[in-house]
Amino acid sequence: MSPHNPFRTSSSDTHTEMMEATYNALRKQGYAALTIQRIGDEFPKSKSLIYQHYEGKDELLVAFLEFLLDQFKSTIPGDEYADAHEQLQVLLDHALPESPNSDHLEFVIAMTELRAQTPHNGPYREQFTKTDHFFQEYIRDIIRDGITQGVFRECEPAKEAMFIATSIHGAQSMHVTTNSDEPYTVTRRKLAEYIQRCLVTENI
Amino acid sequence: MSPHNPFRTSSSDTHTEMMEATYNALRKQGYAALTIQRIGDEFPKSKSLIYQHYEGKDELLVAFLEFLLDQFKSTIPGDEYADAHEQLQVLLDHALPESPNSDHLEFVIAMTELRAQTPHNGPYREQFTKTDHFFQEYIRDIIRDGITQGVFRECEPAKEAMFIATSIHGAQSMHVTTNSDEPYTVTRRKLAEYIQRCLVTENI
Repeated sequence: MSPHNPFRTSSSDTHTEMMEATYNALRKQGYAALTIQRIGDEFPKSKSLIYQHYEGKDELLVAFLEFLLDQFKSTIPGDEYADAHEQLQVLLDHALPESPNSDHLEFVIAMTELRAQTPHNGPYREQFTKTDHFFQEYIRDIIRDGITQGVFRECEPAKEAMFIATSIHGAQSMHVTTNSDEPYTVTRRKLAEYIQRCLVTENI
Repeated sequence: MSPHNPFRTSSSDTHTEMMEATYNALRKQGYAALTIQRIGDEFPKSKSLIYQHYEGKDELLVAFLEFLLDQFKSTIPGDEYADAHEQLQVLLDHALPESPNSDHLEFVIAMTELRAQTPHNGPYREQFTKTDHFFQEYIRDIIRDGITQGVFRECEPAKEAMFIATSIHGAQSMHVTTNSDEPYTVTRRKLAEYIQRCLVTENI
């Protein structure tokens, strides 16, 4: 999933407000210290609305992950690119920006914490499986389009997409879990080189 | 760091036993449910020995990460490879084995959970920074050797190493946090291809 602040534009919809409260509490507390009460503290309406819908923080956080995926699906850009190569470059720059801002970092940190719950929690794992799968298919479709357009050479789009998505994930994860920016910066550059060298047709 | 069971050969050294107790408790409980008491339950000697040395589970787990790095450093293979290309292939196969066994998976899961603590915990972050750095330098040195030997072409060894290490980390992480093996399997294959295509000299 592409990192950003999912609540830059505020909404008065109750479900969205509940999701925003969840995100704000998660950013402030971190996963371990998070409680459904603290999520309630961030919620502008009656806390009982949360308790009516969700039994505990994990159920609420899984709903939050579903919400993020739905939002990601609905905000995917359309046909405003010159070609698939440009679209892939924009995606890379969005997932691994040159100078990540605090919104970006907070989002990646929140996802890193929730992802770490997956080995012991089936519903989280299922949700991350769906999200990763969607992101990989999104990249795959860009590569397929690029082959049709003649900007990318014949290859296995699904496999190229998985490799790119996995490297993006590795770079995001290392960026927020160590004190060194270099592996992030280098992977960003190497992935752009990889696309240029192994996918773009003019190099055949 | 290369995934394996760090305690396959048992030791009667008290520090090692303490570290083994920490690892066993972490594997069984997961990070969130882990307590220093539960680590004590896995320790064959008097629990008071643990309390004398460590104030809480986080201090003990940071010592555990240090122990793993020291152990990794001391068990690095010597000059038993035909050349640096073979050495890099063996490393890749060790980090991303074709059929990961339960020791491997448990180790990666434990590291995923501890790594997720780093955004809110400086000592963990420092330790993962050291470990990642050591692993990247290890790969860099293999690539440098390969250039000297003439099996790898002239390149930027430190940057190639960071890209390879980041992709390995991404593949390990996605493998234990989703229900799909494919991104792992594909990244394993694509990295081997990348080394063959972008590093090995015979392709120039």
